Amino acid sequence: MKHVIIVGGGFAGLNAAKILGNKKDIRVTLLDNHNHHLFQPLLYQVAMAALSPAEIAVPIRRILADYRNITVLQDEVTGVDLLQRTVIARECSLQYDYLLLACGVKHAYFGHEEWEEYAPGLKTIEQATEIRRRVLGVFEEAERTSDCGRQLRHLTFVIVGGGPTGVELAGAIGEICRYTLAKDFRNINPRQARIILIEAGPRILPSFSVSLADEAARDLAALGVQVRTSSPVTGIDSQGVQLGLERLEASTILWAAGVEASPIGRSMGVETDRLGRIVVEADLSISKHPEIFVAGDLASFSHGRTTPLPGLAPVALQQGRFIARNILRETAGQARRTFRYLDKGQLATIGRSKAIIELGRLRFRGLLAWLVWVVIHIYYLISFENRFFVTLHWVWSFFNFRRGARLIINKEWRFYGKKTAAGNKDA
Amino acid sequence: MKHVIIVGGGFAGLNAAKILGNKKDIRVTLLDNHNHHLFQPLLYQVAMAALSPAEIAVPIRRILADYRNITVLQDEVTGVDLLQRTVIARECSLQYDYLLLACGVKHAYFGHEEWEEYAPGLKTIEQATEIRRRVLGVFEEAERTSDCGRQLRHLTFVIVGGGPTGVELAGAIGEICRYTLAKDFRNINPRQARIILIEAGPRILPSFSVSLADEAARDLAALGVQVRTSSPVTGIDSQGVQLGLERLEASTILWAAGVEASPIGRSMGVETDRLGRIVVEADLSISKHPEIFVAGDLASFSHGRTTPLPGLAPVALQQGRFIARNILRETAGQARRTFRYLDKGQLATIGRSKAIIELGRLRFRGLLAWLVWVVIHIYYLISFENRFFVTLHWVWSFFNFRRGARLIINKEWRFYGKKTAAGNKDA
Repeated sequence: MKHVIIVGGGFAGLNAAKILGNKKDIRVTLLDNHNHHLFQPLLYQVAMAALSPAEIAVPIRRILADYRNITVLQDEVTGVDLLQRTVIARECSLQYDYLLLACGVKHAYFGHEEWEEYAPGLKTIEQATEIRRRVLGVFEEAERTSDCGRQLRHLTFVIVGGGPTGVELAGAIGEICRYTLAKDFRNINPRQARIILIEAGPRILPSFSVSLADEAARDLAALGVQVRTSSPVTGIDSQGVQLGLERLEASTILWAAGVEASPIGRSMGVETDRLGRIVVEADLSISKHPEIFVAGDLASFSHGRTTPLPGLAPVALQQGRFIARNILRETAGQARRTFRYLDKGQLATIGRSKAIIELGRLRFRGLLAWLVWVVIHIYYLISFENRFFVTLHWVWSFFNFRRGARLIINKEWRFYGKKTAAGNKDA
Repeated sequence: MKHVIIVGGGFAGLNAAKILGNKKDIRVTLLDNHNHHLFQPLLYQVAMAALSPAEIAVPIRRILADYRNITVLQDEVTGVDLLQRTVIARECSLQYDYLLLACGVKHAYFGHEEWEEYAPGLKTIEQATEIRRRVLGVFEEAERTSDCGRQLRHLTFVIVGGGPTGVELAGAIGEICRYTLAKDFRNINPRQARIILIEAGPRILPSFSVSLADEAARDLAALGVQVRTSSPVTGIDSQGVQLGLERLEASTILWAAGVEASPIGRSMGVETDRLGRIVVEADLSISKHPEIFVAGDLASFSHGRTTPLPGLAPVALQQGRFIARNILRETAGQARRTFRYLDKGQLATIGRSKAIIELGRLRFRGLLAWLVWVVIHIYYLISFENRFFVTLHWVWSFFNFRRGARLIINKEWRFYGKKTAAGNKDA
């Protein structure tokens, strides 16, 4: 009986677990510090109040309930003892025969971790609800105040980072201001909000072709989003962003400017790349440790490529499945294979009915691309229940521009504890 | 132009606002410290992971968006200046011609406010998500630990208070343990969880007839809930409940044992009853202040009754509408009327397909009562969108025993900030 430990219940870990589920002579323990698998590509829709957290997140143990050889533990892994072949978590230590590390990345603030408080990133449900609270909260604050300077600051949204996430967030805020909230206020006009997408490099969406990126920029402009390229951020505080000598006053700043790997790789002393990702062999194992595999955003795979594979869901999914199949092959006495990525292309969406898609030489945009995007995302949503409700919710909001989850939920749950209305923090 | 200020966007405040919306010579400001109206009767379903917050909560300003004479402000009212006819909130002060106070009640811990931390009540979305986090979290903890004593404590749920809310919570936890989670764990058996409903008085559901309450107790027993009557709680801490000399070890304690009015009545120096509710005249105004009305849970109305009207949604709804109509009547030069409550009966639900209903001499229970309960609640859910999705969600979970919102969402949203897995607090 071989014990496989999987760290992380994202696309890679979950898909590996499914392949290993109910297989003879295999026992699996999956550790994650959240109880849910998160459909990350739609997380920005939770932040933008279009979907509820439960619509894109499913308890990992429910997904795996029917595989009797899999145990799911909610726990946080803090280290790996390579010699003892032991995973050390906060609440337990477990020995493995095979280890799959798939605990992903977090936001990188390039040495300015103090910026995170003012400019949250978007990787977890908690961060998404925090962003929702902030975005909806500033409209409430702007409606309450009669001070023009504060109103302007509250109605300025800065998104740092011009990759797909930044573009999606900026487009969604543009839509909220133009359509969703248009009629709801008396003292302010949400259509006059300023939305500024800041990119340090020379253009947005650098991983896409120039022509598609230009078209995305035009679509953003139509939603009222200003794009500023070649503008590295030099400072962030609670009231705005510094771009060299220029200052942008803004109550809401969102961070979509870069990621770095989970610290686990560095803590293990194995080879990592510039972003902290673990460098892997052609079979996704670690050099000199054939019993340890790495998959998803945490892996730096560059065999036969000029740059490592990007941190996309299809990469993670294919790698998770591949590793699980290699483990099965090896326990059955067969030789391992080497990983080959089947390119699924890349896409980004801009608002309610526009998207761009690039797959090799195939490029398209507009409503058709958006429909392809919708179909792909619904197809991959992991459980049927969620797929069903998310589809309904989308169809619904497509036709009426509403957002069903416009809730400002305070962090404080107590009544006696000095709760304050959300967003009063800098009043 | 008369300015009507409404404090509170619950059933009373919102229904008053709708009557006053788009009426000539009336201007309305509605203040609430949340941005959403909450369909309180279904709040326990959010706590029990069956519904998402957004399915029972709708932004107040969206509901009222089409009434151009209504301004909605998210702000917390701290006092009323009776002489200056001014409402004082954290961010603004506003003068009124008419004032409607409808800011409800909060949980009362009978002088033991320190118990709240260990035994949260259920009045807000924040509290509901906290309860969900705790209930789901202890199963994760029990699965992780191999210490039998801790496992037993983690799998013991104590609900304090045998009114409708306590009965609904206990029944829902019974169902989660028996059906929803039954297959999901490897080290624990959720069916063996202990669920204890504690009531200080001689029987549960004291507002219902003895025969219905007895039948509810039998339904609870069938779901594995132990009922303990005549058991006043004398102490609560993070690991259990003290009942006189007896000690119950439990990681999860929920409070459904009593409410007291918002402190606004006492702060104004007007007549209040034992629970802090404002004593009102037959037209729901305050003695000597015909320009101030009180509605809903905050009002103590006992004209022609032996006890004040109970804190039920139909009471609040009827009072809110009545007050708005009286204001319209008076501004049109007509005389005020006096309030009469049209009794809608009372109901409570026990688990997935059982309920009890009592309306005068009409009493029924079981599946039929539950279907009536479902229809009534869906009918009253305030916006069509929510009604639609909640219905679907219910139908869905009725047939597969699933709970669509089993998410443990941490309070901390930061990545660098030392987040811990939910529920590690007493590890």
